Amino acid sequence: MSNGDIFVGEVIGTAILILFGAGVCAAVTLRYSKARAAGWVVIAFGWGLGVLAGAYTAAPLSGGQLNPAVTVGIAVDTGRWGKVWVYVLGQLVGAMIGAVLAYLTYLAQFRANERRVGTTEGTEDEPVPTLGIFSTIPEIRNPVANLLTEIVATMSLVLPILAFGLTKGLGESGTLVLIVSLLVVGIGLSLGGPTGYAINPARDLGPRIVHTFLPIPHKGTSDWGYAWIPVVGPLIGAVLAGLIYNAAF
Amino acid sequence: MSNGDIFVGEVIGTAILILFGAGVCAAVTLRYSKARAAGWVVIAFGWGLGVLAGAYTAAPLSGGQLNPAVTVGIAVDTGRWGKVWVYVLGQLVGAMIGAVLAYLTYLAQFRANERRVGTTEGTEDEPVPTLGIFSTIPEIRNPVANLLTEIVATMSLVLPILAFGLTKGLGESGTLVLIVSLLVVGIGLSLGGPTGYAINPARDLGPRIVHTFLPIPHKGTSDWGYAWIPVVGPLIGAVLAGLIYNAAF
Amino acid sequence: MSNGDIFVGEVIGTAILILFGAGVCAAVTLRYSKARAAGWVVIAFGWGLGVLAGAYTAAPLSGGQLNPAVTVGIAVDTGRWGKVWVYVLGQLVGAMIGAVLAYLTYLAQFRANERRVGTTEGTEDEPVPTLGIFSTIPEIRNPVANLLTEIVATMSLVLPILAFGLTKGLGESGTLVLIVSLLVVGIGLSLGGPTGYAINPARDLGPRIVHTFLPIPHKGTSDWGYAWIPVVGPLIGAVLAGLIYNAAF
Amino acid sequence: MSNGDIFVGEVIGTAILILFGAGVCAAVTLRYSKARAAGWVVIAFGWGLGVLAGAYTAAPLSGGQLNPAVTVGIAVDTGRWGKVWVYVLGQLVGAMIGAVLAYLTYLAQFRANERRVGTTEGTEDEPVPTLGIFSTIPEIRNPVANLLTEIVATMSLVLPILAFGLTKGLGESGTLVLIVSLLVVGIGLSLGGPTGYAINPARDLGPRIVHTFLPIPHKGTSDWGYAWIPVVGPLIGAVLAGLIYNAAF
Repeated sequence: MSNGDIFVGEVIGTAILILFGAGVCAAVTLRYSKARAAGWVVIAFGWGLGVLAGAYTAAPLSGGQLNPAVTVGIAVDTGRWGKVWVYVLGQLVGAMIGAVLAYLTYLAQFRANERRVGTTEGTEDEPVPTLGIFSTIPEIRNPVANLLTEIVATMSLVLPILAFGLTKGLGESGTLVLIVSLLVVGIGLSLGGPTGYAINPARDLGPRIVHTFLPIPHKGTSDWGYAWIPVVGPLIGAVLAGLIYNAAF
Repeated sequence: MSNGDIFVGEVIGTAILILFGAGVCAAVTLRYSKARAAGWVVIAFGWGLGVLAGAYTAAPLSGGQLNPAVTVGIAVDTGRWGKVWVYVLGQLVGAMIGAVLAYLTYLAQFRANERRVGTTEGTEDEPVPTLGIFSTIPEIRNPVANLLTEIVATMSLVLPILAFGLTKGLGESGTLVLIVSLLVVGIGLSLGGPTGYAINPARDLGPRIVHTFLPIPHKGTSDWGYAWIPVVGPLIGAVLAGLIYNAAF
Repeated sequence: MSNGDIFVGEVIGTAILILFGAGVCAAVTLRYSKARAAGWVVIAFGWGLGVLAGAYTAAPLSGGQLNPAVTVGIAVDTGRWGKVWVYVLGQLVGAMIGAVLAYLTYLAQFRANERRVGTTEGTEDEPVPTLGIFSTIPEIRNPVANLLTEIVATMSLVLPILAFGLTKGLGESGTLVLIVSLLVVGIGLSLGGPTGYAINPARDLGPRIVHTFLPIPHKGTSDWGYAWIPVVGPLIGAVLAGLIYNAAF
Repeated sequence: MSNGDIFVGEVIGTAILILFGAGVCAAVTLRYSKARAAGWVVIAFGWGLGVLAGAYTAAPLSGGQLNPAVTVGIAVDTGRWGKVWVYVLGQLVGAMIGAVLAYLTYLAQFRANERRVGTTEGTEDEPVPTLGIFSTIPEIRNPVANLLTEIVATMSLVLPILAFGLTKGLGESGTLVLIVSLLVVGIGLSLGGPTGYAINPARDLGPRIVHTFLPIPHKGTSDWGYAWIPVVGPLIGAVLAGLIYNAAF
């Protein structure tokens, strides 16, 4: 695969992933959304099916890795690091584009994020904080515990992907992409409770940059103090998964 | 494929799609339905599995496109426009038949859509508006934002379908049809919040025509002022997806 | 396939189907169940995954039809009626065994179906009616509308199965069984609201016979006045699906 | 397969299974989890997708059985008992490691399991009992009924797995692993209500040992009086499934 194909594939695939992922968080968070408060199962399936859509679309161009942690895990396994930067760059650019697309999809809802008098007499709707639509926020802020959660959750993503033989080329079989998508649904359901499961540095960092600049009323903090954890945790988890795979398989 | 096979296949497949889709909206909306208020995850899976049932059934006859936006996206990609009118005509007729079948399935529930004294003392049930069972209604009425939502959501459908290689014949593999169905589930969960995700001109227009004529008590408006957006938005999204596909792949 | 293999396969497969189906209805209905009131999505997936488990298990013996409507639809299509009675007999016996197994699985819950003082002071729990765990009950009792619902819903099952090429032998491919299971999930979500979707005469009649005889406290009526509809409706739907299939494909 | 590969495969696969399974129970049970009270469908999919992740990862090393009941059922079918102890030992060790990983993933949440004054004035949050995150607890304590539930539910797991031809090597096909995972989702939805569906002696015993020793505040009883039922019940069910399989197929 040429550097150009890899870059374009990762941009398109990661943009679709983040469009679906940030989209589903907007869907359950924002007022005037038909899916408001639809619950955790909707979040987990929205992100997992975003992997399905993005990875399958990107597969013929780049293999559809869409995640620097997956790229690093494969590099630890294969020892080939030469093209890692192309993948990661495409993933970061794609994640930012996807965040903008999600913003445009929910444009009227974001613009309506004002304090207003509710339709029921005497009630008043508050604007909702919007960072959680774009990036992850821990329920309990504790760097050691938050890192640990992201490390274990990312290992649960990268080790199975390596064992699935996806190092040989993601997307060769539709069933493999489907299984990885359901794996991401499972990680969300089971391991997403404490931190919102970044498990992907580009998925968190790209949309956080976009959130910093988007003109959303009452958007709240972009919380840059936490931003290193969903980058460092997944990378540690990916390296550990690569080492375990090489030792055990 | 002969024009006759294409027409019959698209009629049957789209009728099944709309039967499931309008059916699930009736199921969660109407009184005296066991699925009443079952939530957004039910809506999204009902529509997605309608794609599964309809596309798989139609596949041997017409390839199971079931959506003018998919048909136009494939035409932009391949440059073959000669049979587009047969597909679209079949899709529109099928969508109208599906809407009637959903009405017949929920016949007793539609007939019971009257104001009545509730079973609990002192309460009174109101008739529910019924257009949302057949066609889409935006949460915030804003033509630019509504168009934008439908364009992005339709691109998220058509670009992956083109990349999946389905231009070569939808339905060759069961796994591909399954993946497209789950893609539609994902679009519903993630991008359906603002407008109810038409992403298919026939899906919205056909049932809206049927709603205009059906003898449902207290059925409410058929809202023809909005009807152009779920036709024009998906078509723009389909053309954009075809152009991006041709440029990138 | 020998008559003996067909009979044993249909007994085992239908028993598993009804164990899962009646089981999930018990799970959401009975007190002292961890899944109590878990909602319509749980019902629909429970029944659909019962098809998965039963059809896949029965496939090597009988092809895993598990439903007289499917058997009749295939006979209308192929013109071969000679073994229909073996299939249907196995399905009915299997459905009764499955209902007994579901009863045994929830034995303590059924026994606890007594009036009792609740754990919260001053509240009192009522016994729940139990027929809905075993057989279908319409939300609005109207023979014409109820028949219509069962006819349309069964056509939505049998026509896709015929088009899927499953006449040539259910269970040859895991993906086909998976798709039929998801089809049944979809029918439940979309078309199950009015009558609880029998779409299978054995699924309704077998467990209703069992319910008549089981020693469940406060079990309520077995409602034999309704019992003909979930038998006749699905059979009409199956014949119509077979005729449409032969005409269109 | 060498004993070493079998042991390592079962350790890794069962650890992943329990990480997802105990993880999803922590996710819906503990305070300060984004998935708190997300309901039964989340539990059932979390466990089922844990099977997907664990079995697929372990497949190239050990075939991914992950459950002494599956191992015993296959041994009853094939008559080969020589390596059963290697599988079971790996499963038990893996289950304990998985429980520790789930604890680490939810470390901050477990540590916060203290009595505290709620954020809303005048309310007070109670610590939650934690055994249900690790091991099963019956809703109604009745050894005969509880055993019966575990026997029927385990037969519903092992008989289909044997019929699926998985005795010849789990993991040869991605679709088979996917179907077994969905089978486990179905068992959870349909048969999990009375006892929480151990259906796997290692899944219950390993985490119970870990729960006994973990330093969780207000962790509550480890309930060793019940511990024999989720071991003995699944083993009886597995033997019965093996005998039925040999008789019928």
